[in-house]
Amino acid sequence: MDYNKFFSADVPSFLRSPVREIFRKVDLSAICSFAGGYPAAVTFPTEQIPGLAATVLEKYGTKALQYGATQGVPELRQAIASRYGVPVSQVQITTSSQQGIDVCSRVFLDPGDIVLAKSPVYLGALQSFRAYRAEVMDIPSGDSTSLRSVPAPPTAYGSGPIPLHLSGGGQAPEGMPLTSAKFIYVIPDFNNPSGETMTLEEREEIVRIAREMDLLIVEDSPYRELRYSGEQVKTIRELAPERTLHLGSFSKIFAPGFRLGWIIGPEELLEQIYVCKQCLDLCPPVLDQYMACEFLESGALDANLEKTIAEYRRRRDLMLGLLEKYMPAGASWTHPEGGLFLWLTLPEGIDTVALYDEALSAGVAYVAGSFFYPDGSHRNTMRLNFSFIEESKMEPGIKLLAGLAANSLKHR
Amino acid sequence: MDYNKFFSADVPSFLRSPVREIFRKVDLSAICSFAGGYPAAVTFPTEQIPGLAATVLEKYGTKALQYGATQGVPELRQAIASRYGVPVSQVQITTSSQQGIDVCSRVFLDPGDIVLAKSPVYLGALQSFRAYRAEVMDIPSGDSTSLRSVPAPPTAYGSGPIPLHLSGGGQAPEGMPLTSAKFIYVIPDFNNPSGETMTLEEREEIVRIAREMDLLIVEDSPYRELRYSGEQVKTIRELAPERTLHLGSFSKIFAPGFRLGWIIGPEELLEQIYVCKQCLDLCPPVLDQYMACEFLESGALDANLEKTIAEYRRRRDLMLGLLEKYMPAGASWTHPEGGLFLWLTLPEGIDTVALYDEALSAGVAYVAGSFFYPDGSHRNTMRLNFSFIEESKMEPGIKLLAGLAANSLKHR
Repeated sequence: MDYNKFFSADVPSFLRSPVREIFRKVDLSAICSFAGGYPAAVTFPTEQIPGLAATVLEKYGTKALQYGATQGVPELRQAIASRYGVPVSQVQITTSSQQGIDVCSRVFLDPGDIVLAKSPVYLGALQSFRAYRAEVMDIPSGDSTSLRSVPAPPTAYGSGPIPLHLSGGGQAPEGMPLTSAKFIYVIPDFNNPSGETMTLEEREEIVRIAREMDLLIVEDSPYRELRYSGEQVKTIRELAPERTLHLGSFSKIFAPGFRLGWIIGPEELLEQIYVCKQCLDLCPPVLDQYMACEFLESGALDANLEKTIAEYRRRRDLMLGLLEKYMPAGASWTHPEGGLFLWLTLPEGIDTVALYDEALSAGVAYVAGSFFYPDGSHRNTMRLNFSFIEESKMEPGIKLLAGLAANSLKHR
Repeated sequence: MDYNKFFSADVPSFLRSPVREIFRKVDLSAICSFAGGYPAAVTFPTEQIPGLAATVLEKYGTKALQYGATQGVPELRQAIASRYGVPVSQVQITTSSQQGIDVCSRVFLDPGDIVLAKSPVYLGALQSFRAYRAEVMDIPSGDSTSLRSVPAPPTAYGSGPIPLHLSGGGQAPEGMPLTSAKFIYVIPDFNNPSGETMTLEEREEIVRIAREMDLLIVEDSPYRELRYSGEQVKTIRELAPERTLHLGSFSKIFAPGFRLGWIIGPEELLEQIYVCKQCLDLCPPVLDQYMACEFLESGALDANLEKTIAEYRRRRDLMLGLLEKYMPAGASWTHPEGGLFLWLTLPEGIDTVALYDEALSAGVAYVAGSFFYPDGSHRNTMRLNFSFIEESKMEPGIKLLAGLAANSLKHR
């Protein structure tokens, strides 16, 4: 039977994630893998879970097992609202912060719309935007005249400048596809994949651009609570609450198996997101929400977070030391103040995509940096994760990577 | 700030559910409400939950709290595969069976596509199809010539016959919108809202139509395990496994708070659904999946199901007896062999939509039947739920409904 004719025109844009393909190639647990993006299992409050379940059922009874409100259970919404200092009406619970990205895509994007993003971009977001046939372009920089004509990336989306159809205003010029920029997407704190944090000035610039172009901002913030050094910077939501949807996640501060996140944003936007979410899954998992709420409200989350931060800080420092020790001249890397990733740039001419199979055979895995660029550029970069790899594998892994890089340099 | 310009063209089709609007109007727990579609809390294995959590963590450790496979954890997929006698490769776990409907809509439907359904249709499915700007039309009946020209419903979608563009074949005639029927959607067992069950002959007819028109079938089956009388009929999937996506749910046999369902279907279709689901939420809730798996594999699910069935059978019989006792002549109702609902048809001329506010004031709630008809017809019908209402409220509730109906008849 030929099934192809049944698929929606959107299906070709449900690209298989190249990262997932990497995970399929080999049993990564058998080698030194910096490829994953998982939190360390040692940070999960594993022993506390059965007790949490018992407490929740004692406190809420069968309500914890029944259908719940589409916006999330009131107790958890209130706990999030209190933690971040916003009214409860500005909080929507999501079934994972990936769903937060997806629901924003679905509510705002039409085919041909543009999402402005700061490359390198989180792959799960790129996939979601592409599934709605939106195009991802770099956030314009420089003077305000450049804002109206943004150069399209050279591959995959055609080339040459595409006149932006500012949302709500005017028409695309004749002969040009109607394109409309709807929102800016950024991970300002400890970006996945680069590990970089935007300064206050950079955040203010994002807000200035969003206000000038009249765009929304989707501030994806799954790592914000994982800061190991430096000072916390204001969120973009704090700078522009009227146009920002701030996405939070329990995956890195509780456990990803709960699939819980939240959106903080203007009520008028959440109202549409709520109606859309009804169609998606009616409501987020209810027992999980009450367990997250209990974990947060009892103070256990903050106690666990302190231990998690100490653990990851140690791993980050270990990784930075090893890079310093082994990497050849010409290599550079980011020094993340938090999160799970750092970004390695090898000398020009080394191709981390082409190198990947050799790396696997040698016993080390990473994610090629070009996957995070909408135009597939930056082929000499890679994302390295320091949260999930066993510490004993860090040194052999970095040594292998350094050896591969040095060898590639010799044969250029 | 004007937010309207940011919304996708799809947003107007994210219709607010009229049922949810009903729930907003009044505190239904204070009156006699037949409106809900919830399972009875007494059927939840509440005392077993903390023990389940402890067992799962002992057995699977931190794996139960980490990210899991997008297809679902292998153990639960295997348990579902064994229960229903299919290969594990034909099982995808979903974050609720509502997500199953949504993901099928997303993978198969383009704007203007047609879903063939048997009215009255589950409202959550109607909403999901409409959100993708698909049109819902009745399954054609009679001889095969009628299959190629299906009359459109008189309202909401224009009127007159729309020549169906059979999927994969031919072109729509000039001047007509390109429309393509992709799948048939049915709840063959104890339909929500009507409570009716399709006979084997009716299922075979659905399969015949699907094969003749070359359509897929989405067999929504959340209630199948809740049979109180009569004999189980073969599923449509058993009759046509090559073109059926069978959607199952843990909401009625475990607890809805877990938001877990499954899709059984051809691997070629699940492959696309899997890739799409990556964008939606990466994976279903993991601890919840292991708890459902443990509940199923230990035999506790079947033991609990037996008690659930006895409980609901008693409630159904009570409701049927009360309708017999109180309803005026000219009223009729379905005699469901399972599920959570029955369908009441009042004499012609009684308008259950217009009557609703009066009913609420009198102290009784229901869902007007016309909401389940894509064309808004059948205004003399209503859906009555017998699983969630307190038993002590059943008799006063039915008396109130019967009084309203009798009163309406007098004033026609």
